[in-house]
Amino acid sequence: MKALKLRAEDLGDWRRTHFLKEINENTIGKEVRVVGWVASVRHQGKIIFIILRDREGLLQITSKEENGEVFYKLAKIKPFSCIGVRGKVISMVKAPRNLELIPKEVKILALAKKRPPFPLYSRKLPPLDKRLDLRAIDLRRFTTQAIFKIRRVALESFREFFKERGYMEVNTPKIIASATEGGANLFPLLYYDKEAFLAQSPQLYKEELVMAFDRVYEIASAFRAEKSKTLTHLSEFLSVDVEEAFVNYKDVMKTCEELTYNSILNIKKECKEELEALKVNLELEYPYPRFSYDEIFKELESLGNPLTWGEDLSSSHLDTLAKKHSSFYFIYDWPSNLKPFYIKPKRGKLSESFDLMFGSLELASGGTRVNSKSLMIKKLKERGLKPKSFEYHLKVFDYGMPPHAGFGLGFERYLMVLTGVNNIKEVTFFPRDQFRLVP
Amino acid sequence: MKALKLRAEDLGDWRRTHFLKEINENTIGKEVRVVGWVASVRHQGKIIFIILRDREGLLQITSKEENGEVFYKLAKIKPFSCIGVRGKVISMVKAPRNLELIPKEVKILALAKKRPPFPLYSRKLPPLDKRLDLRAIDLRRFTTQAIFKIRRVALESFREFFKERGYMEVNTPKIIASATEGGANLFPLLYYDKEAFLAQSPQLYKEELVMAFDRVYEIASAFRAEKSKTLTHLSEFLSVDVEEAFVNYKDVMKTCEELTYNSILNIKKECKEELEALKVNLELEYPYPRFSYDEIFKELESLGNPLTWGEDLSSSHLDTLAKKHSSFYFIYDWPSNLKPFYIKPKRGKLSESFDLMFGSLELASGGTRVNSKSLMIKKLKERGLKPKSFEYHLKVFDYGMPPHAGFGLGFERYLMVLTGVNNIKEVTFFPRDQFRLVP
Repeated sequence: MKALKLRAEDLGDWRRTHFLKEINENTIGKEVRVVGWVASVRHQGKIIFIILRDREGLLQITSKEENGEVFYKLAKIKPFSCIGVRGKVISMVKAPRNLELIPKEVKILALAKKRPPFPLYSRKLPPLDKRLDLRAIDLRRFTTQAIFKIRRVALESFREFFKERGYMEVNTPKIIASATEGGANLFPLLYYDKEAFLAQSPQLYKEELVMAFDRVYEIASAFRAEKSKTLTHLSEFLSVDVEEAFVNYKDVMKTCEELTYNSILNIKKECKEELEALKVNLELEYPYPRFSYDEIFKELESLGNPLTWGEDLSSSHLDTLAKKHSSFYFIYDWPSNLKPFYIKPKRGKLSESFDLMFGSLELASGGTRVNSKSLMIKKLKERGLKPKSFEYHLKVFDYGMPPHAGFGLGFERYLMVLTGVNNIKEVTFFPRDQFRLVP
Repeated sequence: MKALKLRAEDLGDWRRTHFLKEINENTIGKEVRVVGWVASVRHQGKIIFIILRDREGLLQITSKEENGEVFYKLAKIKPFSCIGVRGKVISMVKAPRNLELIPKEVKILALAKKRPPFPLYSRKLPPLDKRLDLRAIDLRRFTTQAIFKIRRVALESFREFFKERGYMEVNTPKIIASATEGGANLFPLLYYDKEAFLAQSPQLYKEELVMAFDRVYEIASAFRAEKSKTLTHLSEFLSVDVEEAFVNYKDVMKTCEELTYNSILNIKKECKEELEALKVNLELEYPYPRFSYDEIFKELESLGNPLTWGEDLSSSHLDTLAKKHSSFYFIYDWPSNLKPFYIKPKRGKLSESFDLMFGSLELASGGTRVNSKSLMIKKLKERGLKPKSFEYHLKVFDYGMPPHAGFGLGFERYLMVLTGVNNIKEVTFFPRDQFRLVP
């Protein structure tokens, strides 16, 4: 028996009866079938203790030499192998969760050939790049599980919010003929025999769609060829886009506030354990404070880090602001020249625009849109863009383009806030940046 | 007053109090503010009748010459212009829905410059290409609204299904380094200084993710450079992808069946009016009939349109089958050579695979996956693919890749079935094919 050679067996009609977290007082004395990965193997004389893990739970499996084949299989198994176990649940004070499984049958489902090049269940976090190289395994870690549960709840909460308020879910093309905001940061592609680009944002499409659906949202990938190497940029990210007819930027600013705050309330309710594990405190001021660009301009002056009026906030300015405003806040009424051509101008050099900030991090950006064709053409020309390239968009304006406003939220940046991580790649399943195209 | 020149006014703090469908017996006698597009203008002596439309409703607005400025504004307005009206709702037997609005104030929000090159509210459908050129307007049509409501309910229903069953929602990269299933049909792009491709499917990523999340789903864009000009292909489509650990193809076939059938039940409940408008009957046999490839092979022979064993079904074979199987059915146990390298072989030349069909249309495709690294390498080589290109995927197999199975469903094709349209572009907001890259 000791010469037993382990080999992976076919799943056949073997199916689990319980997830490991479902093994509890109510299953004591019952025969169950569980599946999972071997997290650790400990020999103590003629007894073997195995910790089995699945997505959310763990369970100790204890086998004695007298169990024969089952014992020898477990004695040979290596951590990370994937097994199924049929056995009886018993109460055991010394075991994790005071329960253990006495195996009657062990099914080898996959044999691990190696150990990952980093420890998986230790508190110390290995370097991110190493973990990303083997992301599928890294994602099994308790903290990554916590991050992605929060991600799931945030997405569900967003969609529920939009559904309750009658927003139509839309999907706009990611392959586009011309750049929305000029040619910078675009990935070019070969579309049959034509040049095309990956969409940076669904901007013009979502604007058009308010003509048919009044209020729309899209949650989908957007693509930006960001050459800056920062902790807050991705080449491919999830963009939460909202657009609504017959409202202005103040209305959608409120929508942006309610959307995010509502999701935070849900996360606090559904992800208590995860927030604790990540040491995140989501107590915050609501409504979020609102400052005009002019107010921020004055504040920066008083804080000894003055800004030239009409210039964008540098990372130094943002750091200064973050010291005073460490949570969510809005900056509104930006100078027109800092905003895209489709943003509606206001009196003087200002625009009906806003950014949602969290400390020094820009999370969302929105505004009232230009809904006059002649103004749109004028603004395109001012930016050196050719109205001809926007012909398919501009012609829609001939048929009654309503006043409208909207915003786009960078979902991964928002997740950084919700999970307290400082690198955007931590909240992305398989991140893409200038240097990473695999896995 | 008659020389009044209409011009678009600012929205200011003007907000609607009701959608048009919310104007009913309960609002009679009340003052309301509504917004929408002018669908028709009819002069009858010194009275003007305007039909106003918004996303879901319509309302008659009736003004007499004695109303002064309000009358002259309405008298000059052109169809498709966008207006806001404040007024009192009264009961009026002759009006649509037996209600009309007596305006006290008219706000011009956007002036239409033209009429669309096709009638919008007539029963006769203009050519699709014409409509797609001005899609934002075309989408206002009642039948397109019906189609996209069904689309929304189908999506909501899918996500609810996955949530209830504990599937993790994931998003995998759309920019990838190498082809999943060989190099055909891929769009190449320039990723910084490297060549990359748009993902045809999240196949390998979703397989890896079952190691961390057990069961996952993704609903996102996928890209295929389809050169065939058919009514059932798009270059960019929404792919519904499902993957689950510790199960085989028979289990996920059942999941595929329950997922779709459950959404159909919801659509029948929530979209009665829309299904009637589209003349779609969603009565169907459940569970869906299941036929092995061998059974289909024999059936085709008996129907006088024989197939060479091991060959794929041609469109002629599919048409023959559709005459006998006009609704949903499965074809399972396909010859291995007809399925991708990651599908698990079965006895002989068969594979643990299935397609979900509707008549002659393939809707979904799935199977048990190969979870042995050595078999995977062997199958890659058999197909002339280089294991080296799949290095990042193959190395995951060293850490206990569980048995798993999954499927991918082409969402737009499924929508064709739900809405009864015969061209896939009808169910896509802004479709992409070999000839269409705008709008």
